[in-house]
Amino acid sequence: MTPQALPLRQDPEFSRLLRPRGVAVVGASADLGRIGGQPVRLLTEYGYAGKVYPVNPKYTALAGLACYPDIAAVPQPCDVAIIAVAAKQVAATLRQCGEAGIAFAIVFTAGFREIGGEGIALEHDLAQAVAASGVRVVGPNCIGIMNVPERIYMGFGPGFHNPNLRCGPVAFVSQSGGFAFSVVGLVDAQGIGFRYIVSGGNEADLTTLDFIEHFLDRDDVEVVVSYMEGIADGARLRAIGRRALDKRKPILIWKAGNSGIGRTAATSHTASMTADYSLYRAAFREGGFIEVRDSDDLADCIRAFTGRKLPRGNRIAVITTSGGSGVLMADHCDQEGLSLPEFQPGTLDQLRAIMPAFSTFANPADFTAQLSGNHELFNQGLRIVLDDPSFDQVIIRYGAVQGGNSHLWAQGIAELCATTDKPLLIAWSRPPELSARSLAILAEHRIPWCLTPVRTAHAAGVLHRFADKLATLRPAKIERPLEPVPLAWPAAAATLSEYRARDYLAAYGIPVAKEILLPPDALSSATALDLRFPVAVKVESPDIPHKTEAGAVRLAVADLAAMRAAAQAVVASARAFKPDARIEGVLVAEMQQGLETIVGALCDPYFGPVVLFGVGGITTELLKEVSYRFAPFDLQTAKEMIEENRLAPLFKGYRGRAPLDVDALAGVLSRLSWLIADHAAHIGEIDLNPVFVRVAGEGACVADALIVTRAA
Amino acid sequence: MTPQALPLRQDPEFSRLLRPRGVAVVGASADLGRIGGQPVRLLTEYGYAGKVYPVNPKYTALAGLACYPDIAAVPQPCDVAIIAVAAKQVAATLRQCGEAGIAFAIVFTAGFREIGGEGIALEHDLAQAVAASGVRVVGPNCIGIMNVPERIYMGFGPGFHNPNLRCGPVAFVSQSGGFAFSVVGLVDAQGIGFRYIVSGGNEADLTTLDFIEHFLDRDDVEVVVSYMEGIADGARLRAIGRRALDKRKPILIWKAGNSGIGRTAATSHTASMTADYSLYRAAFREGGFIEVRDSDDLADCIRAFTGRKLPRGNRIAVITTSGGSGVLMADHCDQEGLSLPEFQPGTLDQLRAIMPAFSTFANPADFTAQLSGNHELFNQGLRIVLDDPSFDQVIIRYGAVQGGNSHLWAQGIAELCATTDKPLLIAWSRPPELSARSLAILAEHRIPWCLTPVRTAHAAGVLHRFADKLATLRPAKIERPLEPVPLAWPAAAATLSEYRARDYLAAYGIPVAKEILLPPDALSSATALDLRFPVAVKVESPDIPHKTEAGAVRLAVADLAAMRAAAQAVVASARAFKPDARIEGVLVAEMQQGLETIVGALCDPYFGPVVLFGVGGITTELLKEVSYRFAPFDLQTAKEMIEENRLAPLFKGYRGRAPLDVDALAGVLSRLSWLIADHAAHIGEIDLNPVFVRVAGEGACVADALIVTRAA
Repeated sequence: MTPQALPLRQDPEFSRLLRPRGVAVVGASADLGRIGGQPVRLLTEYGYAGKVYPVNPKYTALAGLACYPDIAAVPQPCDVAIIAVAAKQVAATLRQCGEAGIAFAIVFTAGFREIGGEGIALEHDLAQAVAASGVRVVGPNCIGIMNVPERIYMGFGPGFHNPNLRCGPVAFVSQSGGFAFSVVGLVDAQGIGFRYIVSGGNEADLTTLDFIEHFLDRDDVEVVVSYMEGIADGARLRAIGRRALDKRKPILIWKAGNSGIGRTAATSHTASMTADYSLYRAAFREGGFIEVRDSDDLADCIRAFTGRKLPRGNRIAVITTSGGSGVLMADHCDQEGLSLPEFQPGTLDQLRAIMPAFSTFANPADFTAQLSGNHELFNQGLRIVLDDPSFDQVIIRYGAVQGGNSHLWAQGIAELCATTDKPLLIAWSRPPELSARSLAILAEHRIPWCLTPVRTAHAAGVLHRFADKLATLRPAKIERPLEPVPLAWPAAAATLSEYRARDYLAAYGIPVAKEILLPPDALSSATALDLRFPVAVKVESPDIPHKTEAGAVRLAVADLAAMRAAAQAVVASARAFKPDARIEGVLVAEMQQGLETIVGALCDPYFGPVVLFGVGGITTELLKEVSYRFAPFDLQTAKEMIEENRLAPLFKGYRGRAPLDVDALAGVLSRLSWLIADHAAHIGEIDLNPVFVRVAGEGACVADALIVTRAA
Repeated sequence: MTPQALPLRQDPEFSRLLRPRGVAVVGASADLGRIGGQPVRLLTEYGYAGKVYPVNPKYTALAGLACYPDIAAVPQPCDVAIIAVAAKQVAATLRQCGEAGIAFAIVFTAGFREIGGEGIALEHDLAQAVAASGVRVVGPNCIGIMNVPERIYMGFGPGFHNPNLRCGPVAFVSQSGGFAFSVVGLVDAQGIGFRYIVSGGNEADLTTLDFIEHFLDRDDVEVVVSYMEGIADGARLRAIGRRALDKRKPILIWKAGNSGIGRTAATSHTASMTADYSLYRAAFREGGFIEVRDSDDLADCIRAFTGRKLPRGNRIAVITTSGGSGVLMADHCDQEGLSLPEFQPGTLDQLRAIMPAFSTFANPADFTAQLSGNHELFNQGLRIVLDDPSFDQVIIRYGAVQGGNSHLWAQGIAELCATTDKPLLIAWSRPPELSARSLAILAEHRIPWCLTPVRTAHAAGVLHRFADKLATLRPAKIERPLEPVPLAWPAAAATLSEYRARDYLAAYGIPVAKEILLPPDALSSATALDLRFPVAVKVESPDIPHKTEAGAVRLAVADLAAMRAAAQAVVASARAFKPDARIEGVLVAEMQQGLETIVGALCDPYFGPVVLFGVGGITTELLKEVSYRFAPFDLQTAKEMIEENRLAPLFKGYRGRAPLDVDALAGVLSRLSWLIADHAAHIGEIDLNPVFVRVAGEGACVADALIVTRAA
């Protein structure tokens, strides 16, 4: 399925969840420190303007509020029920919510899928209650939801006990509750606030993707953040990535559970299904996602994007008053794919006219420490550089930011920024607590800063990459190179060896080596073949998918006599390797020349059909230099896939060699993507290995193929 | 030269520089905000216990101190002169210092080598004055030196204007002054202090390496930090790296100027000579260096090492009270090369007996948020895990660190740590300003913590890698595989093509393909050769170093007739490629089989002789999958060099193939290292490409070679 074809789920009225008129706390405790007591306290003490309805038959009043014996007794309107009852009572409680007309439930209770066994059955009951009642559920096993500016703290745990959290245009959806709030605390300490924070728990009903999608659509959210361990619907993740680009709104994604170890832990933690990280990365690369690695990185990216300016290209100017930071920023800009062109002559003339004698006006430029006391001059120089059309963005480090006039400097920067559409990022380089006044000015004007030169260069790189995605965004709809071809598939799962696989490939216009299947009884008598020598001679058997390992291949066989001998030999090797193998004959194929590549395709259970590409044989496999794209895709995407491989220079006439037929290779990739997309229900995996790519104009050719089908 | 053979420079009496009895300020200004005034103020107001002697003929008194007309008038003892006079007066001032018996000068003055032209001449004068006077100089173009605990602030600029900087057992030597002090400020804000901070400036006399070496020897320094853009003496860097390991003292190295862009900037900034970053990395990997990437990373590494415990292996336990952070730490431990074994059965039994029902005791373990209020129980569980012999270190995240009993928890941790020799690292995860009391307890007991789970995993990885270097440290002296072989070298620089190069290789026991040189006049008449067919046929010309690019190679030539034809053809191709090439004949060599590798060697102007190794042809070149070692080295180092290549599995019998002759390949590498080490004065570069590695027991063989010699 292509991303645009995905039906987006019917949107629950999330605004009722995020801004409820009333909240029932079912299982409310009179001990306000307990899980059932904390939300009562948070909702009554921190400023929530709606109604709070504790529900517990044991009390008539609680924390100064009337307490209700059951959900039916709760006054309306009540949009959310927080549920903190025993796991076994949760399903029944949800049904009662449905009867009472409460649209949403936030289930704190643990002991469901994450503990296995009995918990799985309980979660199944819960899902049935959701379906029957129509109540939409966050959790179970979640720690709650926070609407920060309106102080609607519907949760528990230390992360919620801060009535002074900063507010900002950022939504955070997390698959780990406790961890998310510790990140919120660290990011808040850096001066950055959130608007909504959601802990999704086991996601028995509403999922991380539901929330991300909703936040993309909300006007009060400019940046969406997600901590993600694993999701079940990769195609929807892709659709959301596309939507983010269409809306020009970044999703900052912190993906964990990527190592073998981490994934095991992730599975046992939220019991999420988790696809291979490489497919997540393919989805992130394709859509409006920016991967973040730690809370500092998250803070920097939020600040960069809430600056609301994007660069038009990758050209950056670096200005400092200390050479060391310039060197560092240049190093890291280079790593980020940014270029540092020279200043234009007019810029140089203007700078030389005003700057100290020992300044250097290379890029990075060093205005020298002599400007320490002279913030007007620094900003005058910065103005000149901002006006230079050679640059798409500018990053600066000014050594004197903690001086007494730091706020005047910041005010000057704010005035400069008001008159440019280029991003300006500041490497602050001083403990923020020593310069609160200037940082407040920057915050007010949304001028991004990062603590260190390294982090600033990274933030500039992030802005560039997102802007580049927007600039190169193509229509979601892609052209088919051919109409869907009906194909007959085995009813049961099977392994189609080379000779049988070739028909499927040929049907989609994928060029295969010219070859002939000699039946077993024709081996010794074979005469003139309509093939060009030398040839490759290989056993054909559905039971030997990897012929080389069985010793059942002979290459560069020079003539007919040698071919006959080779045919006998490969059959003998195959028999020795696997005595009961069904031998359907010997395949004789014209030898192919060109650069050896690997092309593969598979149907991932979470992401669907995907195509992969690599250069060379074992080397590629060991170095994992492989690119992925989701199927289907067109020639241009196929070319990008080839281009992003670090071995791509081999296709362009490397070291005096002739350029290779990239168009033909791209054709193989794109057509394979349509083959697997059109027949995804039948295909498990396809291996085209090797595919030889000849010099430009002479095409590409599959020299061996294997298709693993599955039961429809 | 081997590291141990390096004569270490005669040590100046650095203690006189770092703790002077008196400091003269030459060019002292009555304006205490100016560069010549700032040190007067800093030394008199911040607590320096020695004497301060302003020198300036314009004043008789200054800032309440007697001011001296010239250096000769300064009372003794005076160990340091700070020099802030015009560039042209610096050399003469140094001579006066020498006459007055002042041992050290710190030269703030800029306008030397870093500005080129006239500045280079002035720096030359300065160097002559150093030699003539015996005064040892820091700078010029430096911002000074700081002895933090004794408040001896001999510098200028905003970094020095903090009389409350924290103290710690760390020395920092920087090639960028302003930047270094901004880093000190950021690291100080994280609770970490320094003992000595040195800005080396242009290093006309005393260098970064002089200071690093001195600090390695000082008992009051436990960790040495250096920000480095480039050094001139790579061999000495290596010797210092060895010394750090011998002393079990880490050098945290922040290397900048590594990209093409950054290096240009570095060169123009401190005018340092800069070798290729890959050689720095080889030196760092070999010695006691830990590379750091940013100020947070630096802070974390300092804290980890000042914890004074090292792990015995790579096995780590991860304990949390929130699954998310466990997943993240597991991911990052995996990236750091740490392993997460399971808990021993006895450990599991003990944990299950005391921990909440939904805890998971996989590794990472999640004791669950139910322990939020129960720090005793958390520490009880931690005690059990620390006692498990399956682990070499433990990292933890406890969600409740900011609670009211946080200090009690920290006190409990301190008691636990007192009874274990395993490192324990804490992922603090809360803004430090909210938990100052507990962090003070950790600091007092030197228990390392990092702000985030990601950073904590990294710090654990750093401890492991340093400990592993110590554990695998071998004697610096290595065995020669053969006595030095005298070789005749061309007097002038030359390119030795394959046939001539082979004798040099053979002399050092490096196996070369069996081959014969046919003179030009014998090409058509050549009869029976003492060679096994098939053969390779290649033109032999000193003017065609890259024969393949000239089309002057034919491979797999099957018999004598074909050989004759090929010989004519390669000569014709060579003539067409380069009409004036001197053609010395045609080389006929037995074709080689095996895995294709590349072995090279070069004499780097800064680091000396170095050997490099890669697998395969163009692929390796494009992917830069190359390992480096400094020459000479033994078989074991050669094997490590092979092993660290990501393609190393190819040598071990990958995917059913036969294992390859790693011993023979290691022999080629080690012998080549001795060839270039013994004859470094004559050799520029050696290319052995390809070297074929056969199956185990059958050796390796150089199939093509090129030696570029240089004038002696």
